[in-house]
Amino acid sequence: MVGRSVVSLDDLTVTEIRELLDKAAYIATHQRQVAHTCDGRVLAALFYEPSTRTRLSFETAMLRLGGKTIGFAGAQLASVSKGESIADTIKTTANYADIIALRHPKEGAALIAKEAAASYGVPVINAGDGGHMHPTQTLADLATIQSRFGRLDQLTIGLCGDLTFGRTVHSLIETLCRFGNVHFVLISPEELVTPRYVLDRIEATPSCSYVEVRDLTQVIGDLDVLYMTRVQKERFFNEDDYLRLRDTYILDEQKLAQAKTSMAVLHPLPRVNEIAVEVDDDPRAAYFEQVRNGMLMRMALESSVLGDELPGYVPANKEYKV
Amino acid sequence: MVGRSVVSLDDLTVTEIRELLDKAAYIATHQRQVAHTCDGRVLAALFYEPSTRTRLSFETAMLRLGGKTIGFAGAQLASVSKGESIADTIKTTANYADIIALRHPKEGAALIAKEAAASYGVPVINAGDGGHMHPTQTLADLATIQSRFGRLDQLTIGLCGDLTFGRTVHSLIETLCRFGNVHFVLISPEELVTPRYVLDRIEATPSCSYVEVRDLTQVIGDLDVLYMTRVQKERFFNEDDYLRLRDTYILDEQKLAQAKTSMAVLHPLPRVNEIAVEVDDDPRAAYFEQVRNGMLMRMALESSVLGDELPGYVPANKEYKV
Amino acid sequence: MVGRSVVSLDDLTVTEIRELLDKAAYIATHQRQVAHTCDGRVLAALFYEPSTRTRLSFETAMLRLGGKTIGFAGAQLASVSKGESIADTIKTTANYADIIALRHPKEGAALIAKEAAASYGVPVINAGDGGHMHPTQTLADLATIQSRFGRLDQLTIGLCGDLTFGRTVHSLIETLCRFGNVHFVLISPEELVTPRYVLDRIEATPSCSYVEVRDLTQVIGDLDVLYMTRVQKERFFNEDDYLRLRDTYILDEQKLAQAKTSMAVLHPLPRVNEIAVEVDDDPRAAYFEQVRNGMLMRMALESSVLGDELPGYVPANKEYKV
Repeated sequence: MVGRSVVSLDDLTVTEIRELLDKAAYIATHQRQVAHTCDGRVLAALFYEPSTRTRLSFETAMLRLGGKTIGFAGAQLASVSKGESIADTIKTTANYADIIALRHPKEGAALIAKEAAASYGVPVINAGDGGHMHPTQTLADLATIQSRFGRLDQLTIGLCGDLTFGRTVHSLIETLCRFGNVHFVLISPEELVTPRYVLDRIEATPSCSYVEVRDLTQVIGDLDVLYMTRVQKERFFNEDDYLRLRDTYILDEQKLAQAKTSMAVLHPLPRVNEIAVEVDDDPRAAYFEQVRNGMLMRMALESSVLGDELPGYVPANKEYKV
Repeated sequence: MVGRSVVSLDDLTVTEIRELLDKAAYIATHQRQVAHTCDGRVLAALFYEPSTRTRLSFETAMLRLGGKTIGFAGAQLASVSKGESIADTIKTTANYADIIALRHPKEGAALIAKEAAASYGVPVINAGDGGHMHPTQTLADLATIQSRFGRLDQLTIGLCGDLTFGRTVHSLIETLCRFGNVHFVLISPEELVTPRYVLDRIEATPSCSYVEVRDLTQVIGDLDVLYMTRVQKERFFNEDDYLRLRDTYILDEQKLAQAKTSMAVLHPLPRVNEIAVEVDDDPRAAYFEQVRNGMLMRMALESSVLGDELPGYVPANKEYKV
Repeated sequence: MVGRSVVSLDDLTVTEIRELLDKAAYIATHQRQVAHTCDGRVLAALFYEPSTRTRLSFETAMLRLGGKTIGFAGAQLASVSKGESIADTIKTTANYADIIALRHPKEGAALIAKEAAASYGVPVINAGDGGHMHPTQTLADLATIQSRFGRLDQLTIGLCGDLTFGRTVHSLIETLCRFGNVHFVLISPEELVTPRYVLDRIEATPSCSYVEVRDLTQVIGDLDVLYMTRVQKERFFNEDDYLRLRDTYILDEQKLAQAKTSMAVLHPLPRVNEIAVEVDDDPRAAYFEQVRNGMLMRMALESSVLGDELPGYVPANKEYKV
């Protein structure tokens, strides 16, 4: 993966994603050993729109590997306001930094950045561009499932809430299809069903299957993973529909009582009220673990594309079956 | 103090505060020795409102101990704008950082943060929440008095200006009462006198006493410490009152001529015009020392709650009399 | 240069500038050796107006020398909004940091800062104050010419575009006059000619000469260096003039075809459209090298004023003829 930019998860093979999962697991238990992996490296976090959670995750990942960070976030951006193109900003930054994490409101920005940085040998990691891709979020999701179940397949995975506009959900489904052997339970109101192209992706995967349902309580007992997303009020035609449906898609201890004790609850965060705070203390709540896993996966990814080997790491699991 | 959050100074015993003063004095003269005390540590400076002076102090303290920093300041905040609760932001950050410094405009925010971070073992230091508490400012004040006089008691301490709304003044008085043997001279216009509950605190301390006066020049010759605060125009009912009183509460070389040569002038900064710039070069001016002492006390506090021992430090003064 | 503030390039002798160029060349090829030159140092980047390119350059320079950074940029500034004077902010910061880089919209701010920091022994580097000086930009320009030609003299240097308001151009001309033996070709529309005081500077230098022309294509074949600047629309009395002139001052491959193969194209960046993107891949394009040279010169300058010696560096070229 050395020198590789990651604009979408399609830039990584299934084997490479497995290697990142393996490395993240290693990092989690060897923080002290890896603390100087990226000594002397500089990460530029260029956040054209604020996304504190993601920015701090990328930055902490580099810091905990021994590297350093520069960058800007939202209001701080400068040259930009003088009309500089994103390609020029990237070419400038590529003279300062060894790796760039880019967040941009426009779709396609990460691809432009990748090309601008290419001649400098500086990899660009997409930290979200428009409604498009956000590959490291999906890596965080995968790491959380992997750490809870020791595998990514042979699982029944429920996705609940806004399945029309939730890009993290689409990306997770598509990536899990690459690994195969997953049964998806798609739980959403009729107004917010999964788009056809995502269903097509599942249908094109012989080892995967899905079912679409409207009611969480009806299926919660079958699930290994419940991936919650936020149902935004503004997606509904009228307030009545919103109020009628909302409660169906709020996870609380009462609904959770019907779930398996081994089920894992994921959420990309931030949440508003779609998971009751009382759930936080339930051992099935995995969404803050997901934050930590996101940082660990970013540590794995940053060190890998920089070509900095994790001290003591032995790629033991090369024989994973795909 | 390991793992301890500090929401207010009541979270620290008098003995612990003395230990911090002792450590700060050690750090001041052993900067090179302590430069790797917190290697591998990450401080998150979460500033929901800008306070550059305080933020840079917390950050520099961690950097000078060998640690690293992440965070946001004011306009940069992100997830927040998507309606995330402070508890969720803290739980997220506790997955990245080893210690959190929090500044928030709402009273009580630091206590909520402390509780949210508790299960992660991540201490929270209150860097100011609303009109409430700002414990590290008081630590800076104490360190300055200690370094100038070698003690915190047997002193006549004047507090001058807005004694009604100045929270730093209240906190300093309350903390000095815990140490005892202080005579307070409370210098303010009638409109801005010390609140009853603060006077009660002094009266409840047998070894402490106070007097309330209106005129600085009348008492300046008696003082060991003169703690200046800003008199804000908007506190007055009318401009005439403000103009009439203002000059009484401006410290200049002329007024200073009547003070002891050993007196120390403190001010929490920023100042506007309540201390004339000419005073800066007077050896009695201690308010920029106070800035440095604030950083040293934050170094002492950060390393203490992280459980990182200062190399070479011997707690020599365990036998302090309280 | 130890402890020296740099408000303008007049604060450095020609010999000292040559030493910085020499050090920058050393750093470029010895990045690993110099990576701990400033261990334990803290740079404060105080940017009262945003200038991401410059801020990141100063910060990266310190990080790549092993130091750390604190600071603020634009919207983050805080105490400032409470009316604190720049001198007080600097005196505060001088208690935190070992060196300060200051960007401020008001002319003279850097000089005030230099004086405020003097008693703390903290050097201030002017990162731009108002329309006034921006010495490290000129250092980047010089380093780029030096690295392309191995010398700063015996060159024909064209400066093209807005020569009236472009402060970087004035500073570069004045500094090159100190080195001597340069022929300047001043290419601008009549509305944007070089100010009299700059022409006087050249005329006062016996070994230097200049010619003023209107048309780039007419002279491009003679140039060793072509320094492009932006022609801002708002400088023109009417749109017709702007449109008529604009194309004359846009550098593209067609115009470049008439230039020497050894010519170097410089630009202070950001550019808008005055250099066509197609030029970026031409070996004569030196403007992104200039970004890197700016960082290297800032590394040389920061380490020099801090008195931190570059490991392995031998000042070989002390016998430069001036």
